[in-house]
Amino acid sequence: MSSHYTDRLHAAIQAKQTPLCVGLDPRWEALPLALRRGYADSAAGRADAYADFCRRVCDLVADLAPVVKAQSAFFEEVGSAGLFALQQVVAHAHARGLLVILDAKRGDIASTAEAYARAAFETYDADAVTINPYLGRDSVEPFLRLARKLGRGVYVLVRTSNPGAGQFQDLVCDGKPLHQHVASEVTAWAGENRGASGYGNVGAVVGATSRKELTELRRLLLDVPLLVPGYGAQGGTAGDVRAAFDARGLGAVVNNSRGILFPYAPEEVAWEEAIVAATRQAAMDLALAAGLK
Amino acid sequence: MSSHYTDRLHAAIQAKQTPLCVGLDPRWEALPLALRRGYADSAAGRADAYADFCRRVCDLVADLAPVVKAQSAFFEEVGSAGLFALQQVVAHAHARGLLVILDAKRGDIASTAEAYARAAFETYDADAVTINPYLGRDSVEPFLRLARKLGRGVYVLVRTSNPGAGQFQDLVCDGKPLHQHVASEVTAWAGENRGASGYGNVGAVVGATSRKELTELRRLLLDVPLLVPGYGAQGGTAGDVRAAFDARGLGAVVNNSRGILFPYAPEEVAWEEAIVAATRQAAMDLALAAGLK
Repeated sequence: MSSHYTDRLHAAIQAKQTPLCVGLDPRWEALPLALRRGYADSAAGRADAYADFCRRVCDLVADLAPVVKAQSAFFEEVGSAGLFALQQVVAHAHARGLLVILDAKRGDIASTAEAYARAAFETYDADAVTINPYLGRDSVEPFLRLARKLGRGVYVLVRTSNPGAGQFQDLVCDGKPLHQHVASEVTAWAGENRGASGYGNVGAVVGATSRKELTELRRLLLDVPLLVPGYGAQGGTAGDVRAAFDARGLGAVVNNSRGILFPYAPEEVAWEEAIVAATRQAAMDLALAAGLK
Repeated sequence: MSSHYTDRLHAAIQAKQTPLCVGLDPRWEALPLALRRGYADSAAGRADAYADFCRRVCDLVADLAPVVKAQSAFFEEVGSAGLFALQQVVAHAHARGLLVILDAKRGDIASTAEAYARAAFETYDADAVTINPYLGRDSVEPFLRLARKLGRGVYVLVRTSNPGAGQFQDLVCDGKPLHQHVASEVTAWAGENRGASGYGNVGAVVGATSRKELTELRRLLLDVPLLVPGYGAQGGTAGDVRAAFDARGLGAVVNNSRGILFPYAPEEVAWEEAIVAATRQAAMDLALAAGLK
């Protein structure tokens, strides 16, 4: 297996023939009742239910998608048992052949960032982690160093998909929006460690909510793998994400969380079939958007 | 007890007569050998050692400082047992009458930010949490809402103390640096929920590494309580932080982590005495800087 994150990601995308990333955002109220009933409504009970649910989702999507993205917040919310659940889910996803992005959006000063990097890549064994650039270069470098050493990836927030994202990210500084300044840095970081596909192991989070911005950023983020959230529940469509891909259909994964995890009411019995159907549909839509099919 | 975070903080500052915040950043290699020897060098062993060490630090500083700041990264690094240790440390600090700031620097889109806010204030029971503003208003609001409801505080990163902080934070947008745009928003948020002291429950993280910037930001951040890192090991001095305080000596706390936790070599036996002496000195220096003594 290649030791370069983006080469491994691209191999997985080509094997599954889709750039779909399945978001693991477990929410107690939305879990299928048939599963939820088996667990106590306590922090530890919820954590066990999240581990069970996410493992079953991995089983269901393992043949249909190359990568999953675990949202750290929902595991942290249920305390120490939640972090144990997160470790179990990552290990199970790996056992099913799925890559795992840990969506943690961390960022801190250098010596603290080292601890966060070790947490992401060693303690939780994620293939890649999302980070926040606000603290600048020296807060990012510990992630880059450890990722390079271990063959992992880093996705830096550039332009996010939430309604208020533009408040600071779109402020114009020295003639261009802040997020383009971040994009320039990310491109430089990505260029320091390219894989066989030409892409670096440093990626960018770029929301799917504005087609114009995605097109512009794809051009700026040369050889930078993209993680595109905002598809599905947040309003982005397959057409909106077309610009994220290169001519081979590579260079980006597109995340869908709620649309795949919860396309059913909690009381529905056939929730597993609903997840498979939603995953197949999203995988196909995105394969077409990427030009993989 | 007042239900407003900053009123509780100010009462604690006045009771202890110092604005010192003791940073709980446990690092395995730096722990006193006498304590470290009692624990296995495994994730769970380290987590237990961190809980033991931080509880003992709380015992030692409880009469000398109003507040401690727990750095989430070091607890996360040692896995699920680390998060259990963090919960124990927060509970122990509270039992000793200390307020607790959770230094987590979280930031995510709205529904995920809600989970992070519940994690900080409910799961870990922190009195305040640090957050990152890069994702904009809707990523901050879930923290503000829950903090207001529960009488807790939020510190938004404005200008951090690390060497690379200026890379993005100092970019000039529409005539002023990015961090001043963030400062304006923080001032507005703080104004929405003032306590008896006139300060809001929304604060700002402003590094102690530039006296000029701290002075400017103190002026801009009207009625915003400050959390000032970078004092001690990161190079800031008592003179550098003078500008953070109002005429009553209130409005800011100044964090010192390594200078208080580790003012000894690991093999030194009298490490507890060293912590007490370092805390007394920092408490006195900062009381003078604030004009409390």
